[in-house]
Amino acid sequence: MSASESQLIERYFRGLGARRGDTVLGIGDDAALVRVAPGSELALTTDALIEGVHFLPGAPARSLGHRALAVNLSDIAAMGAAPSWALLSLNLPSADESWLREFAAGFGALARRHEVALVGGNLSRGALSITVELSGLLPAGQALRRDGACAGDELYLSGSVGDAACGLRILRGEAAAPPAEAAYLKQRFEFPTPRVALGQALRGVASACIDVSDGVYVDATRLLAASGCAATLEIERLPLSQALRDTLGDGSWRAALSGGEDYELCFTAAPAQAAAIGAIAARCGEPLTRVGRLQAGAGLTLTMAGSVMQFSPSGFDHFGD
Amino acid sequence: MSASESQLIERYFRGLGARRGDTVLGIGDDAALVRVAPGSELALTTDALIEGVHFLPGAPARSLGHRALAVNLSDIAAMGAAPSWALLSLNLPSADESWLREFAAGFGALARRHEVALVGGNLSRGALSITVELSGLLPAGQALRRDGACAGDELYLSGSVGDAACGLRILRGEAAAPPAEAAYLKQRFEFPTPRVALGQALRGVASACIDVSDGVYVDATRLLAASGCAATLEIERLPLSQALRDTLGDGSWRAALSGGEDYELCFTAAPAQAAAIGAIAARCGEPLTRVGRLQAGAGLTLTMAGSVMQFSPSGFDHFGD
Repeated sequence: MSASESQLIERYFRGLGARRGDTVLGIGDDAALVRVAPGSELALTTDALIEGVHFLPGAPARSLGHRALAVNLSDIAAMGAAPSWALLSLNLPSADESWLREFAAGFGALARRHEVALVGGNLSRGALSITVELSGLLPAGQALRRDGACAGDELYLSGSVGDAACGLRILRGEAAAPPAEAAYLKQRFEFPTPRVALGQALRGVASACIDVSDGVYVDATRLLAASGCAATLEIERLPLSQALRDTLGDGSWRAALSGGEDYELCFTAAPAQAAAIGAIAARCGEPLTRVGRLQAGAGLTLTMAGSVMQFSPSGFDHFGD
Repeated sequence: MSASESQLIERYFRGLGARRGDTVLGIGDDAALVRVAPGSELALTTDALIEGVHFLPGAPARSLGHRALAVNLSDIAAMGAAPSWALLSLNLPSADESWLREFAAGFGALARRHEVALVGGNLSRGALSITVELSGLLPAGQALRRDGACAGDELYLSGSVGDAACGLRILRGEAAAPPAEAAYLKQRFEFPTPRVALGQALRGVASACIDVSDGVYVDATRLLAASGCAATLEIERLPLSQALRDTLGDGSWRAALSGGEDYELCFTAAPAQAAAIGAIAARCGEPLTRVGRLQAGAGLTLTMAGSVMQFSPSGFDHFGD
């Protein structure tokens, strides 16, 4: 191994992602410098992927570059912000340049698609883990927070849920599907699509929003707790893909409720917003499905064919019991 | 282990650090929200500490909390910015709450001292590593960059250099010193003091600046390369503490030149700024020592008693040969 940390950063990370006019200084000094337009608020988030926890050993580097940014883009999307600048901290067991090339390709393609500039990087020797910090911009006071939902609001999900959890089972050899379905489901885990345009379109329409990283049950419950509301979710309304139904059959809804990594948006809106939400779905080219309704109280109740279902989520929590 | 990731974040990290009026929303949503005053630029940096690379296994958690923030504060100081918001990503082998309590105490005390609010956190199970992302604010166009130095400028160092490298040798059992000196030197490694007030005071005075994280030789060379200049550094002018001299004797200057982790500032200024720099030293209560002068050309030349010295730095580079 002959390249130094600065040479590797120079080679693979400098200039990665989009060129932005509001970046004053990118990678190469003690810190990056950026400008935030007056009237804007800045959203800040960080999320990490760790080998053996968030991905299987030997996972493709291109997928990891994509996912490390996607999980952060999803947080920024859930606030209704437009992503802007990223910092990357990479712990690698060795300076494997073909790995770095693939990782940078996955990260860079997604960054360019969403106008994100990589402005800082840090590379250290260690057990494989990837930490990304991402900023986003939005008009002051217009963020989609978790705590704005009211009784009477309707509960929505974007896209389809449960696919990523099923894709991970296929990758682990715990489930099987015909080639086309398997490819679709694995793609949903390895290359998730953060709902960036949707999040911004929901500003002024949704009353609260969260991204689905730990499964619909856990994340919807978090939104309800922050808003001080209860909700009833009708299981038969969950948006499930045909590939998921074909693979897991009657167990599909369990994967949707407790499986993480979908990176769809779960949001609430007043009933009067139904037409606006239909128009946003058409504009973003993505289904937005009403799955339930909020009430006074606390907690998430699940029903199927009108009967209350007991459900114990096996959600994704790295320090859980 | 019974606490979840969100419970641990709630218990140890929510509200950690300073309260800031420009924080709109802290820990607890998909992202934090902050406001940047018009006319300000934002500096963004990230740095990580990894067990076995940046600290010894079993290092005190309070020191790690301090150092993880200090290394980032030092980058923000080197830009001349005022630190503002931090995000923390912690990979821990297990949810050891006494470790978390100590870590948060070390991080929180330093954050409060420098008006830093912790606005986002992420906790995962993994090999121990700590990644911090830190923002800072400064008037637009006034950053201390690495690339502003000119031939004729003078080269300065803050504080004293080499102490942290010597402290690490003592911690490793590779050097010994009497108790008071050993305590001072170990403190310099475990609880470094980022030069935050100094960095801001140098705006409009210094022509270029970098923090000394990888040793004076490597970091001064980086500043010179960015500025397109050469410099001569007089080894006998290096600011060395008495404790370092007593411990390493004639080898002290080697520790200063090649030992990392001092987190002093290395900066340049026109000769006409000498009086202003003297006044800043008095105001910040810290010595600022002129160690050399810049010329046209490239690279750092070292002299001792007027003779050029050959020097091969064994600087700190995790992917070096």
